[in-house]
Amino acid sequence: MAIEGVMRSGHVQIRVLDLAAAIHHYTEYYGLILTASDDRRAYLKGWDEFDHHSLVLREADEPGMDHVAFKVRGENDLDRIEGELRERLIAVTQIPAGEQLGVGRRIAFTVPTGHRIELYATCEQVGNGLPLRNPDVWPDGLKGMKASRFEHVLLYGPGVEATVALLSSVLGFVVAEDVVTEDGARIGAFLTAASKSHDIAFIEAPEARFHHLAYWLESWDDIRQAADIIRKKNIAIDIGPTRHGISRGLTIYFFDPSGNRNEVFSGSYQHYPDRPTITWDAAELGKAIFYYEGRLNEAFLSVTT
Amino acid sequence: MAIEGVMRSGHVQIRVLDLAAAIHHYTEYYGLILTASDDRRAYLKGWDEFDHHSLVLREADEPGMDHVAFKVRGENDLDRIEGELRERLIAVTQIPAGEQLGVGRRIAFTVPTGHRIELYATCEQVGNGLPLRNPDVWPDGLKGMKASRFEHVLLYGPGVEATVALLSSVLGFVVAEDVVTEDGARIGAFLTAASKSHDIAFIEAPEARFHHLAYWLESWDDIRQAADIIRKKNIAIDIGPTRHGISRGLTIYFFDPSGNRNEVFSGSYQHYPDRPTITWDAAELGKAIFYYEGRLNEAFLSVTT
Amino acid sequence: MAIEGVMRSGHVQIRVLDLAAAIHHYTEYYGLILTASDDRRAYLKGWDEFDHHSLVLREADEPGMDHVAFKVRGENDLDRIEGELRERLIAVTQIPAGEQLGVGRRIAFTVPTGHRIELYATCEQVGNGLPLRNPDVWPDGLKGMKASRFEHVLLYGPGVEATVALLSSVLGFVVAEDVVTEDGARIGAFLTAASKSHDIAFIEAPEARFHHLAYWLESWDDIRQAADIIRKKNIAIDIGPTRHGISRGLTIYFFDPSGNRNEVFSGSYQHYPDRPTITWDAAELGKAIFYYEGRLNEAFLSVTT
Amino acid sequence: MAIEGVMRSGHVQIRVLDLAAAIHHYTEYYGLILTASDDRRAYLKGWDEFDHHSLVLREADEPGMDHVAFKVRGENDLDRIEGELRERLIAVTQIPAGEQLGVGRRIAFTVPTGHRIELYATCEQVGNGLPLRNPDVWPDGLKGMKASRFEHVLLYGPGVEATVALLSSVLGFVVAEDVVTEDGARIGAFLTAASKSHDIAFIEAPEARFHHLAYWLESWDDIRQAADIIRKKNIAIDIGPTRHGISRGLTIYFFDPSGNRNEVFSGSYQHYPDRPTITWDAAELGKAIFYYEGRLNEAFLSVTT
Repeated sequence: MAIEGVMRSGHVQIRVLDLAAAIHHYTEYYGLILTASDDRRAYLKGWDEFDHHSLVLREADEPGMDHVAFKVRGENDLDRIEGELRERLIAVTQIPAGEQLGVGRRIAFTVPTGHRIELYATCEQVGNGLPLRNPDVWPDGLKGMKASRFEHVLLYGPGVEATVALLSSVLGFVVAEDVVTEDGARIGAFLTAASKSHDIAFIEAPEARFHHLAYWLESWDDIRQAADIIRKKNIAIDIGPTRHGISRGLTIYFFDPSGNRNEVFSGSYQHYPDRPTITWDAAELGKAIFYYEGRLNEAFLSVTT
Repeated sequence: MAIEGVMRSGHVQIRVLDLAAAIHHYTEYYGLILTASDDRRAYLKGWDEFDHHSLVLREADEPGMDHVAFKVRGENDLDRIEGELRERLIAVTQIPAGEQLGVGRRIAFTVPTGHRIELYATCEQVGNGLPLRNPDVWPDGLKGMKASRFEHVLLYGPGVEATVALLSSVLGFVVAEDVVTEDGARIGAFLTAASKSHDIAFIEAPEARFHHLAYWLESWDDIRQAADIIRKKNIAIDIGPTRHGISRGLTIYFFDPSGNRNEVFSGSYQHYPDRPTITWDAAELGKAIFYYEGRLNEAFLSVTT
Repeated sequence: MAIEGVMRSGHVQIRVLDLAAAIHHYTEYYGLILTASDDRRAYLKGWDEFDHHSLVLREADEPGMDHVAFKVRGENDLDRIEGELRERLIAVTQIPAGEQLGVGRRIAFTVPTGHRIELYATCEQVGNGLPLRNPDVWPDGLKGMKASRFEHVLLYGPGVEATVALLSSVLGFVVAEDVVTEDGARIGAFLTAASKSHDIAFIEAPEARFHHLAYWLESWDDIRQAADIIRKKNIAIDIGPTRHGISRGLTIYFFDPSGNRNEVFSGSYQHYPDRPTITWDAAELGKAIFYYEGRLNEAFLSVTT
Repeated sequence: MAIEGVMRSGHVQIRVLDLAAAIHHYTEYYGLILTASDDRRAYLKGWDEFDHHSLVLREADEPGMDHVAFKVRGENDLDRIEGELRERLIAVTQIPAGEQLGVGRRIAFTVPTGHRIELYATCEQVGNGLPLRNPDVWPDGLKGMKASRFEHVLLYGPGVEATVALLSSVLGFVVAEDVVTEDGARIGAFLTAASKSHDIAFIEAPEARFHHLAYWLESWDDIRQAADIIRKKNIAIDIGPTRHGISRGLTIYFFDPSGNRNEVFSGSYQHYPDRPTITWDAAELGKAIFYYEGRLNEAFLSVTT
């Protein structure tokens, strides 16, 4: 009972052109905590996460996302989901424990949009920097924007409808909000595993691309401070501070040194299974994405990695 | 999968001495929406709730709580839970659909602390004042503190440990945070059904009493505005604005005209089943409850209804 | 001693195409209080101002600014300043008391940028909606963005340097911040009468135009709420929420129904005469005006009334 | 014209029992910048102040205030004020330039409440950590509460009415708000030099004592963060976060290691000479001082240094 099966977006592995530059960006400016690194990959977490990491940076020749992984409640969930995927003739790859530091065995499959989705049940806990007994409300030494927890990714690709069908039926995701054309075709979907407004979102596009990853900030005032830091540190800004119509989230978008888009996100609502799906007409996409501007900026549609 | 079984604290029915005065307090100042009333009871909801109500006011000679009800995901959850309760020889009362306006059948039982707990699966949806297609971020006409959704209740009574055991084993609640004496006795427990830091909390006390009900506000700035309204309208304040150590929530406590304690609450964290339980020593109860003051005010322990 | 001579920007009179539509915009959305109107003009004030009005709307065929008026401390300041202007061979017009409702005699002159500047010493006080004895912190019944006090105007025109020289020498204005070209020419100036970061600002341009008027909001959270209202009410937005490099002010720009630009403004600093002037290079104008975006939007330079 | 004569509260010199402990408190927690120190005194400033210091800590056997000093616009103001004081047969002490590091000559006198008031016109400028050309909105490296500028002191002593009369007539202070008994006796006065809601305040009491010094924070969210720091660092809290009725300021009170009371303060209004004086009845003193609590805590009246 309570939260079962897929709990949340657990980590995302992205490609960066220069590992050292990326680590600097994600620790000093985004405010993540570096928990481990080797010459190929670096592992980072939001300060208020207990698991070993929620972001993996992998040095590569091109930016983009390797995979996004959801954490499930138990090892048996992995077996059950693997079985259901295979029943649907979907190829499943098994990744042994330890391939990522601290993470147990994972299973991986590809959704119709072309993105690799992974699932895992166990991860070493390193804690949130506070004791489990009589803790303070935040630890000393936080930096930059103080991103506190991994929130979601947004992906571009073909076959949003089929991807939603798969994630809903096998993984139990719920469509919190979606975007439909005049013909009724669903060209955008924001899916939640449990209570976040979205753990993952898809926008229909010709090929599989990575749009952004988001971490949580505590308030609109922290969004302002993030904006100050973006300017002070000459980080490439995309848009914001602004608000989404979809999710009502308070937001600012910017880019890491490799061109991967980052978001810091706050506000929004708590989702439950009896909350009705909110639908946006494609004609209102501007307001849906950037509530204040009422229109998309060019970068939103064209710049992905 | 995802959120199953008990989803959340769904509604609370409390007793008030003067129904008209209570309606005025909860609509004009707390900012709830009145959805229905008869000469005995009034039904209210937070603006961002879709269900018919989350607060029922019943006119009576003494203040206090009649019951708190949790919403489960499906009717079959009611049958299953009723069966598990009866197996444990716990008396279960069946309440027919319609006893509360808009609410389906409920089952009720009493926990060791002496409080009546109810469960229900269906409730008429009246919406959150916004269209389901291309909605704005909030509706016009909100009043007072703009309480947006029912958050939790805190109850005083004997037998916290046994109550926690029952709610955990049968209803699937998880202890997010608790308070223990030097001897290891648990004298306080904050339980979550899904992802809130707590849906219900108990403090060990000689008899069953109602401590407070809480609704959600969006920000610390809204807590300040609530404080302004409390003073402007001569509402009896208890304490705040302040912060809890437990849950890290931002808060202010005050009283309705009948003496029932209200809270407005913001901040806090998102709970998942793999988040470790936080434990507070009874010697640190002051910091646990009122993080800034570092000690309890006298009213917190002594004033209940 | 203390604040002498010119105290602050006291009121601005602007032209609107439809008086009723303008009144609706400035009261329901901007949140000003209508204190009087006739068939030609409407008088409005921010809720926390004591004087009869700070904004006068005059129905006309074209939008724009009639004049901006500064309030001086005493009637003798008017005589002294009139004398100093005439000594410089600057034409001064005397406007009798009562030409604007509640306002005493005014003197008017034209600065090199082509704008009409007025001065007055007395204005009927209507209060801020709170008693002078044991007041609450804000009155009931505030609407929309709750603009609290007139902050400044920004004007476009030729001869910024000469205008600054005149306002500094005769009216005692201080340049808090300015913008200079590579050649050292001053193409922008932000002038303060006393302690605001600016009471009036000028940007060099070929002809006399009105860029915007600004009122004060209490916080960044109020700026967010203003942005929500702009979208909900389909008000034409220009840019924001964002921040200025000049003044560090938190801001959002939008338009009244006649196309006059409005700003709501918060944050910034307190100016004193010993604060050094901050200078911006024209090459950094983007960051100076819109700190987060780092560049001007096209409207900022081209849309004026 | 503009701001003339006394501009603002410029610095305060207080006594501390342990200079190193005090420096640690005021730099690491309060967030001031240490600009100089010798074995007797330490000089500190708020980050957004340009002058060399606004707080001087002097090691001594007892806590309390040595003097508070107002900065005047010019050296001639010192001569004029000294003359006016002597005409009133008030003893004036001349302090040579350099007695405090970076500060020009000062004059000192004692007001009826028994406190030493000083005036000075010149102070070395060390800047606010940002360039004067194309600055960012805040410098890197700020600590703790990030106190940005000296705001005011509140003093207890006998003869408030006479003190107000002297400061008004000779120094040009204006009473922004006051507190009167049923008999009409003024037992509290909040005086402004220019545009702050108060630069200095007095409460009638049997002997000359120091109640608190206050620095400015930018927002209510910064007040919350200050409260977090107070608890995390085990700083002795007095009361708050709360709001004043007088000045409407958002506030929290706490103590330095020597027992001197500190305040961080935000919000409030901009004062101009034509703003009417707000008067509070002594019977409403609770609401006047602590708007939310509606009553004084015992410490407010009894704990002074």
